[in-house]
Amino acid sequence: MTFQRISILGVGLLGGSIGMAAKSLINNVTIIGYGHRRQTLDKAVQFGAIDLACDDPAGAVAEADLTILCTPVGLFPQILDSIQGAVRPGSVVTDVGSTKKSIVRLAEKKLAQTAHFVGSHPMAGSEKRGVEFARPDLFQKAICITTPTRKTNPDALTAVEQFWQTLGMRIVRVDPARHDRLLADVSHLPHALASALIAMQREEGLELSGKGFLDTTRIAGGDGNLWRDIFLDNRDNLKASIARLEKQLRRLKGLLEPGKGAALSRWLEANATRREELVKRKLREIDA
Amino acid sequence: MTFQRISILGVGLLGGSIGMAAKSLINNVTIIGYGHRRQTLDKAVQFGAIDLACDDPAGAVAEADLTILCTPVGLFPQILDSIQGAVRPGSVVTDVGSTKKSIVRLAEKKLAQTAHFVGSHPMAGSEKRGVEFARPDLFQKAICITTPTRKTNPDALTAVEQFWQTLGMRIVRVDPARHDRLLADVSHLPHALASALIAMQREEGLELSGKGFLDTTRIAGGDGNLWRDIFLDNRDNLKASIARLEKQLRRLKGLLEPGKGAALSRWLEANATRREELVKRKLREIDA
Repeated sequence: MTFQRISILGVGLLGGSIGMAAKSLINNVTIIGYGHRRQTLDKAVQFGAIDLACDDPAGAVAEADLTILCTPVGLFPQILDSIQGAVRPGSVVTDVGSTKKSIVRLAEKKLAQTAHFVGSHPMAGSEKRGVEFARPDLFQKAICITTPTRKTNPDALTAVEQFWQTLGMRIVRVDPARHDRLLADVSHLPHALASALIAMQREEGLELSGKGFLDTTRIAGGDGNLWRDIFLDNRDNLKASIARLEKQLRRLKGLLEPGKGAALSRWLEANATRREELVKRKLREIDA
Repeated sequence: MTFQRISILGVGLLGGSIGMAAKSLINNVTIIGYGHRRQTLDKAVQFGAIDLACDDPAGAVAEADLTILCTPVGLFPQILDSIQGAVRPGSVVTDVGSTKKSIVRLAEKKLAQTAHFVGSHPMAGSEKRGVEFARPDLFQKAICITTPTRKTNPDALTAVEQFWQTLGMRIVRVDPARHDRLLADVSHLPHALASALIAMQREEGLELSGKGFLDTTRIAGGDGNLWRDIFLDNRDNLKASIARLEKQLRRLKGLLEPGKGAALSRWLEANATRREELVKRKLREIDA
């Protein structure tokens, strides 16, 4: 199954990049875009991210064989309500949400009578916002997590995974609940920490900050509403991740004593080595 | 005063880069390098970071008009003892240490009868280690903090600042104690957090980590012994910085409730905006 009419609901950086990538990589594809502001839709057409603009979700999905939810996660309930009766029977719906458990459950319920839903989380993005920063190569060599359940239609799953692969991504299948637990550690907590690290700064210190500080806080530049939705939807896991981080900080504080130099050095060195090995593994995966 | 014979004690990434930069930017300069391993010294000569290799600190500084301490901070006491009676009277000594209060006090005391000491902290570096990663452009457009005290010789201060400027750096003068307090916030805490963020991870989560995680933890890749020295020397300030970060994490946990969405969004947005403005300011400084 190759998708020929793709509807993108929400044409920001991610939705816009999907449109650009699909148009450059799939023959004869038509991209229909929905956004709640006319100005955004006009820009999406102008930048070549979509072919047709539609200012209501139901109209945007009516003819689509693939619909991709690209709005902030918090808008998914109302978007699903809008398209529930409008999606083509037998068509496929997926999403790009950074949390999966509640989204997959809700979408499976809302679309049960019409379309096939497959949860997706393409691990690509930017701290930039808006379709003006969209790029067709955003997904190249990145991971896309798919989160099938017992209810997932196998053909729809294969088709969605092939779609992301066409865009250059490597697929990893993970159960929705496990996805949320692991992403709290490797994505939501880092974002929370980067944000807290900015929040605790004094202006006089920022004057002296260097490249390391900007790198460490880069991901905190994301859209506030989008991350609010993610944090609230995944709050129990995020709280557990914060608690484990706080435990490491307590451990570190215990090592900040002259007599603990050897143990402090070992802790720092072990973490540095672990990151180095991760980088090597990621590079091998990209080359493979 | 232009330095013509420069002694670099410790020819790793930073010391090696200083040698390369000085050789490419100062006419007729001679760089003498000291390292406690012969192999490192041979590599430093081979990579063009130094002209002459010397395997004892006293010999390396005897003829120098500028000596730069580039070993890990924890070795400074023994290095200062070694060179105390060997530095040329009236010559200048500086350093690249990431902490300043205790170093400046010690160096001023040890060198009082011979050389002029000026504390420096060039804010450049890399998570890579060793002279093989040294680069002559490492200092271009970066900040160099100098930390003069009432005891600092004004001519020596000017000469050291001109030296760093020749290497491409912008000078900011800060009192040593204030330097350590501010750097705990913008440099030592980010390093500690990046390290703790790696320490708390489960292997299964790391499989799913993306570019954001690698960026956020990049600085944790540094040398364990070097950072142990920095953390221990600046432990009181670092503990205070950790405490302020923990306060922000408690605040965040309080916002992870469905009814707190608006406040959570504001917190995230304020931090994102603050970082954006910092980036703009840094870009303006670089252009200036």
